[in-house]
Amino acid sequence: MTDRTQHDVRIADAADAEAIGRLLHDFNTEFEDPTPAAPALAARPQQLMSEGQMTVLVAGAGPDGLAVMRVRPAIWENALECYLAELYVVPERRGRGLGRALLEAAIAHARALGASTIDLNTSGADVAARALYESLGFTNREGEADGPVMYYYERET
Amino acid sequence: MTDRTQHDVRIADAADAEAIGRLLHDFNTEFEDPTPAAPALAARPQQLMSEGQMTVLVAGAGPDGLAVMRVRPAIWENALECYLAELYVVPERRGRGLGRALLEAAIAHARALGASTIDLNTSGADVAARALYESLGFTNREGEADGPVMYYYERET
Repeated sequence: MTDRTQHDVRIADAADAEAIGRLLHDFNTEFEDPTPAAPALAARPQQLMSEGQMTVLVAGAGPDGLAVMRVRPAIWENALECYLAELYVVPERRGRGLGRALLEAAIAHARALGASTIDLNTSGADVAARALYESLGFTNREGEADGPVMYYYERET
Repeated sequence: MTDRTQHDVRIADAADAEAIGRLLHDFNTEFEDPTPAAPALAARPQQLMSEGQMTVLVAGAGPDGLAVMRVRPAIWENALECYLAELYVVPERRGRGLGRALLEAAIAHARALGASTIDLNTSGADVAARALYESLGFTNREGEADGPVMYYYERET
């Protein structure tokens, strides 16, 4: 069993922008989403990080994975809410607990920032990711463990 | 068929805070969520509206329904993204197109603000709401119409 403490999860800064762009490009390519080139994908996170609109955690020496977090004031209470926009580990580094280490760090960092909740959207086809989320206490059930499933909907404007 | 143009959807301002608090309280009570009293629910939206963190649309004379919208910079493009946090119509005013008018206005307002997408989360048990979302082009399928379902997950930090 891999020692998770060796995964070296840390908060990214401007110097990581290029690596972040590459990871986001890899992510889009793997999941067959349309993707800008990696340099273009580096510029936007760099801008959003500098504006405090986004926090990125990176893990491993490559870095080999990332968690993209966004916080804003919650509506229902005087606290923040955190949205986990992306969680990705490069294919050749999977199965070693890197995704779990990133997710655990994201939860802890959200709490440290003052967020009372953390949420995310994921595809029903992403079985490994869903198992990871559920193993760390995330639920897609409303109210109770056997409550109705919660769906994510979107459209272009 | 009701003429939707009569529904008088408008952007709420600070003077609507009390009515917004009442509608949010009604919403929580109807769906058996824990809820602060209406006055407490008025204070937070008023604060978030004044800080530009939230836009509320209200409809009808009561007002009888509301849409709570939040925008922030998108990650993948140089545009905003809009999240529809709440959509509610009081029970005695349902079936007259008020929810549809609010949702259409929310989409149009998101576009006007510069948001390229609008998204939301909803319970699988909320059949009427899901039908409304789907009739206005929202999808909970990834990629294509027969793609995998997209789920919403959350946990406390």
